[in-house]
Amino acid sequence: MTNFTFHAPTRILFGKGEETNVGVETAATGSRVLVHYGSDRVRKSGLLKRVTDSLSAANVSFIELGGVKPNPRLLLVREGIDLCRREKIEAILCVGGGSVIDSAKGIAAGVLYDGDVWDFYTGTAEPTKALPVGVVLTIPAAGSEMSPATVVTREDGKQKFYFNAQCVRPVFAILNPELTFTLPAYQTAAGATDIMAHTMERYFAPERNVDFTDRLCEATLRTMIGNVPKVLSTPDDYAARAEIMWAGAIAHNDLLSTGRTGDWSSHNIEHELSAQYDVTHGAGLAVIFPAWMRHVYKTDIGRFVQFAVRVWDVEYTAGREEEVAIEGIRRLTRFFRSIGMPTTIAELGVTDRRYEEMADQALRNGPLGSFRKLEKSDVVCIYELAERALV
Amino acid sequence: MTNFTFHAPTRILFGKGEETNVGVETAATGSRVLVHYGSDRVRKSGLLKRVTDSLSAANVSFIELGGVKPNPRLLLVREGIDLCRREKIEAILCVGGGSVIDSAKGIAAGVLYDGDVWDFYTGTAEPTKALPVGVVLTIPAAGSEMSPATVVTREDGKQKFYFNAQCVRPVFAILNPELTFTLPAYQTAAGATDIMAHTMERYFAPERNVDFTDRLCEATLRTMIGNVPKVLSTPDDYAARAEIMWAGAIAHNDLLSTGRTGDWSSHNIEHELSAQYDVTHGAGLAVIFPAWMRHVYKTDIGRFVQFAVRVWDVEYTAGREEEVAIEGIRRLTRFFRSIGMPTTIAELGVTDRRYEEMADQALRNGPLGSFRKLEKSDVVCIYELAERALV
Repeated sequence: MTNFTFHAPTRILFGKGEETNVGVETAATGSRVLVHYGSDRVRKSGLLKRVTDSLSAANVSFIELGGVKPNPRLLLVREGIDLCRREKIEAILCVGGGSVIDSAKGIAAGVLYDGDVWDFYTGTAEPTKALPVGVVLTIPAAGSEMSPATVVTREDGKQKFYFNAQCVRPVFAILNPELTFTLPAYQTAAGATDIMAHTMERYFAPERNVDFTDRLCEATLRTMIGNVPKVLSTPDDYAARAEIMWAGAIAHNDLLSTGRTGDWSSHNIEHELSAQYDVTHGAGLAVIFPAWMRHVYKTDIGRFVQFAVRVWDVEYTAGREEEVAIEGIRRLTRFFRSIGMPTTIAELGVTDRRYEEMADQALRNGPLGSFRKLEKSDVVCIYELAERALV
Repeated sequence: MTNFTFHAPTRILFGKGEETNVGVETAATGSRVLVHYGSDRVRKSGLLKRVTDSLSAANVSFIELGGVKPNPRLLLVREGIDLCRREKIEAILCVGGGSVIDSAKGIAAGVLYDGDVWDFYTGTAEPTKALPVGVVLTIPAAGSEMSPATVVTREDGKQKFYFNAQCVRPVFAILNPELTFTLPAYQTAAGATDIMAHTMERYFAPERNVDFTDRLCEATLRTMIGNVPKVLSTPDDYAARAEIMWAGAIAHNDLLSTGRTGDWSSHNIEHELSAQYDVTHGAGLAVIFPAWMRHVYKTDIGRFVQFAVRVWDVEYTAGREEEVAIEGIRRLTRFFRSIGMPTTIAELGVTDRRYEEMADQALRNGPLGSFRKLEKSDVVCIYELAERALV
């Protein structure tokens, strides 16, 4: 276990009807807020009105900025920054999923920065202060509701970059599983895949002696494996929606990576798919993660055996560790397929094989990964492996 | 899963040598602090000097108040309150384990209260503000380093009472597993038992559909089961000490009880032993918890079967669920015995059978527990069951 600092101070209000508390929670962050959201779904469902009514009841004034798209765009972040400055906004309230929250984090840090907010995403500058961000979550997936991370895509350059900063970690997040009943099956499954990927990025670490966090990761994965099929067959299964929603927040608040480094290659490799082809992030991960595993498992077969045995109930068989390891990867792939996720790159609509170009972009800051350092040839190989699923 | 609020903002600095950061961390909480500790062990080991040197280097002035005993006493809390007021103390820094932290929390809340601090423990008043509390942890056990709880014993009345208040949750906690290398085996095992008990109090809840937190609890218990024997045979096993120390904090920061109520009967029943006989809390729990289990398992055999199968690797056998459940309790008892804990009430030195009196005291606020409500006859029965261990 390596030394670490852990500080996840986001206040969570979890459960049925909790969004009625949003006014009081928001009032503690500011008296004039930007309500940030994505599609008109939140307006049509009546959620936006319930939220703004609660704000008004708490004497919080607000302006709205909708239109956040999946893979949120830099242009809207810049527009939000201008708007916040012009309107003397004190805090940002997100109503939506990871894209809305990530967009809000960019705005929150950008408002208090003299330069271009893109500097934070390119690593040219580091944010040290931000407007407070609050969340009413509608999609369990990105884990942005408790995380210090934001990912934004620049339209012109097809660049999908991220930054991590403690100052953008949401102050509060309201998680009502009922709000996820109407999520389409595909989005539900893609979100679940993202949650599992956040867990696995942390699980496949190079450190030894990470017993507790290994087990916390395994607990999270097994929770997802057990509950995702339930919500796909019964979308209003509150209990199962609740398990997924809470697991999604914990999977990405940094607890599961305390004392270990995490790998994050699969995320970086997938980000190029999202940036170039506007692929749904979770769907891209369902394709890339198993391909990454097939490329790297020999680096530490023991870890993959543990994954197979503890997470997927593969029986350990002495002398056949490699088969056990591969069977774990196979079961993961089958699981993704069973919940309606693509498992080949072609199913994502990507057929032009621009792997070299994407690999160059993914490696712009140097080799990827900690479980195994990946060079360009590795990344190209992973894109190629992703052409055929292991089933 | 029930609705819940979760807010565990304690900043954790974990790992080798992290106590050298205590000055900087403390300076953010106040410029004049009370350094609170227990026995002279922390002075003799040189830890206290390292801590105060770090404070001085960060321009933090301090006064010291040592002498906290296990089962910390109200008199010292009152003395600390007077001292803090007289010396215009702005924050409290604990160097020690749960007793020191619990004592500090009492002082921290009492300083800002006009009445008698004991009011908080009796439930007559509720604390809403407190001086900031920081921690350098030396004993993984009570979990007080991330928790909102404090337990204090009144000398005259033999009363051991507690309160929970968000305002006393430590602002930061420094956890260096190296500081636990010199803990005697008995204290190590008693601390480990306390950690397991905190997890089991949460695990044995009446709620259904608590899959994620069930699995997090099981992960915590398995981590303890795997690592405690290691540190008993090799006290300076850093990796194993680290697992225990981190698990101890997470076991009691409320994450494991999100969406469920917890039982806490065993803690309440044990508190009477500690108050009356000054028993080591963890040792008392090793005796009481299995006795409680034997008394209540029929209330929900399924939950005890899950405990046996998932935590203790008992094989599930259809139609023999009761045997499976009991085997889980037996393995827990044997585990406690294997790490040197007492498993009968006589081994605690308690032979005068004042069970009725202790039961009355334990039930002063009404029936105990949520997994099963316990009346006086139940509590007496549990003390009686604790006379003979199931092995």
